[in-house]
Amino acid sequence: MAVNPPQLSPPLTVPGFRVGTASCGVKSPESRGRRQDLTLISCTVGACSAGVFTQNRFRAACVRHGEETLAAHADSIRGIVANSGNANAGVGEMERIWSQQLIDSAAQATGMDAAYLLSASTGVIGTPFPIDRIREGMQDAAESLTPDNWEAAANAIRTTDTFAKWASAKIELNGETYTITGIAKGSGMIHPNMATMLAFVATDAPLTAAQLAPMLKRVAGRSFNCISVDGDTSTNDTLYLLSSGIGLGHAELTDSTLFEQALTELCMDLAQLIVRDGEGVSKFVTIEVSGAVSESDARSVGRAIAVSPLVKTAFAGSDANWGRILSAIGNSGVPIDTGSITLKADAITMLENGNLHPDYRDKEGMAVFAKDEFTLYVDLGAGEMSSTVWTGDLTHEYITINAEYRT
Amino acid sequence: MAVNPPQLSPPLTVPGFRVGTASCGVKSPESRGRRQDLTLISCTVGACSAGVFTQNRFRAACVRHGEETLAAHADSIRGIVANSGNANAGVGEMERIWSQQLIDSAAQATGMDAAYLLSASTGVIGTPFPIDRIREGMQDAAESLTPDNWEAAANAIRTTDTFAKWASAKIELNGETYTITGIAKGSGMIHPNMATMLAFVATDAPLTAAQLAPMLKRVAGRSFNCISVDGDTSTNDTLYLLSSGIGLGHAELTDSTLFEQALTELCMDLAQLIVRDGEGVSKFVTIEVSGAVSESDARSVGRAIAVSPLVKTAFAGSDANWGRILSAIGNSGVPIDTGSITLKADAITMLENGNLHPDYRDKEGMAVFAKDEFTLYVDLGAGEMSSTVWTGDLTHEYITINAEYRT
Repeated sequence: MAVNPPQLSPPLTVPGFRVGTASCGVKSPESRGRRQDLTLISCTVGACSAGVFTQNRFRAACVRHGEETLAAHADSIRGIVANSGNANAGVGEMERIWSQQLIDSAAQATGMDAAYLLSASTGVIGTPFPIDRIREGMQDAAESLTPDNWEAAANAIRTTDTFAKWASAKIELNGETYTITGIAKGSGMIHPNMATMLAFVATDAPLTAAQLAPMLKRVAGRSFNCISVDGDTSTNDTLYLLSSGIGLGHAELTDSTLFEQALTELCMDLAQLIVRDGEGVSKFVTIEVSGAVSESDARSVGRAIAVSPLVKTAFAGSDANWGRILSAIGNSGVPIDTGSITLKADAITMLENGNLHPDYRDKEGMAVFAKDEFTLYVDLGAGEMSSTVWTGDLTHEYITINAEYRT
Repeated sequence: MAVNPPQLSPPLTVPGFRVGTASCGVKSPESRGRRQDLTLISCTVGACSAGVFTQNRFRAACVRHGEETLAAHADSIRGIVANSGNANAGVGEMERIWSQQLIDSAAQATGMDAAYLLSASTGVIGTPFPIDRIREGMQDAAESLTPDNWEAAANAIRTTDTFAKWASAKIELNGETYTITGIAKGSGMIHPNMATMLAFVATDAPLTAAQLAPMLKRVAGRSFNCISVDGDTSTNDTLYLLSSGIGLGHAELTDSTLFEQALTELCMDLAQLIVRDGEGVSKFVTIEVSGAVSESDARSVGRAIAVSPLVKTAFAGSDANWGRILSAIGNSGVPIDTGSITLKADAITMLENGNLHPDYRDKEGMAVFAKDEFTLYVDLGAGEMSSTVWTGDLTHEYITINAEYRT
């Protein structure tokens, strides 16, 4: 079940990048040939790059390795190798060795220097990494490298996602037109566990690594960090941004404001696709928090609402239970003047300045909560800052998916 | 559904305290006479008292009022008036007025000074408080005041609890025997929402208000703050401790260590009863975290495991999904050396020093997780401090209970 997955236009090619996929049977030998599970993204030049990683203290080898690689070579990354079907996590000492072997295999097949490659693995954890089967398929992936393979890659990085997720945008800067294309996967934490949010974004806009790193952190804060399926994060969550700068031969765009805006919108699109495909999700709810003293406060309030099991079950039950929303706001850790809060669901005002609105009728609230998409507006009445968070409901299907044996 | 609710011995009377109840039809006029919903706890002397309140920023009038009363009169509290069926919360300006009227009515019926009374309300929120029906029943409650009415009170404060919760203990200090008796209610957040954890504890041990306040905070930290049904807290959560000191006419016990120990055990008993009665809970899981740098770190790790939807659904599915437990530990915000973690389920070692134990067989882990009660042992390998947390599983029944309309 997914909430209104949109018909996506084909992803745009990005000057400087080629993409290839292969079917290795990562998950099991039997799955070989049935679905693509290996992805190569290759840049014809050294790409200026940045990464944002999981905040979980358990971090898979690919995450640790990627962080080190960026620390040394953020201005000359040559590509990404990614597999689905096995997260190469929770397997002890071998994790780092297999992670390096994955990169070495990609380097050998493509002729690129292994030191400049990033990697990502997603899938089951605690299961030995099938490096031999992946090596066998690597050449296929390398041979299929073409500029227009992004949709295949969006499919190849899927684990339990019910649809492939991508977004593209064109942006004009200083009279030049640049492209941004991103792919993502993730549908909540799934069978057997700690499945991963992955997103890879490529652009030809000429931005330096020094520009990209802080920008990507801000962008992630306003997109991927503003979604919640079940509030858990994984060992492997990774967002990579690679810029070929191919348009102007790495001549720096001194003002990156417009690019950051476009990148934020594109990442918000990808993040929302993940919520729409959340485990057991039957409703897509936007939570707009305004009137906060800081953006961070607004986001904390939005996230507190978005992760509350009581609020999420109320969404599932089409129950306009504003008391649960107030309680979640009160649990956010943000200082709140309870007498200043205004709460709306779409056009219906439920609370105004902390009191139930005299015209509010439960029936009207219920009608909004019965929709499969609606927006909650929370005005804290304390400041000028705002943030938007996207979430789904907590349903019987979520329990069914996650309470099943891993057999 | 409740997990192995124990057969409780009758609660012990506490010198200096009398308890009365009445049926007022708080929830609706039709409920009058069907169940007790008003409770009076009266102390024959001024009781040294302390309170611990919800951390939610939305706090009902009874909580704010109780805090103020303790600030002024913690050494001479005369009693508590409590009602179930209506939380007197989320109703705007009237909240404070109705709260005062509840106290005034109790004062009038008992002849005690209103300034020295505490109050607590639990039940539906956002519904006008039926102060008239409560006033009508107050005289009945006052007339039923007897020393041996604690079980009736444990029943009268219930909302959706499936069984009444109490605990009693005798403790010998300096050659004198003292009694502690506590009652509690709470079963997670329920129809319509923000239902409340209430606990009232009475003793005749001669302790000063100055001793009780910090002690009760520590005790709550090790008992009621160590349980999780769904991670949410309410507007009305309250724990009160009243000491009549009747045995020694308020002669101070200079060493309160043994008393604190007994009080902690009693509050742990009450807290565990709440988990056993948690919404939709079918399993009772104890999480013992050791090897932490601080007790606070240990508790944070325990709570992170206890509130993770992925861990709780794994419990529900009898799935020994250690990866989810690791991930929850990694999400706790506590600095973790992932190579030092040892994880056991009852007698089965799953992970040792961050690696899957060579003798571990999934079948054995599954057998533990299939039990309706088991213990997870997490050793962080970083220090000497520990904490224990109790939780339940996240089941279809929880969704059913909480996703239903409030009709």
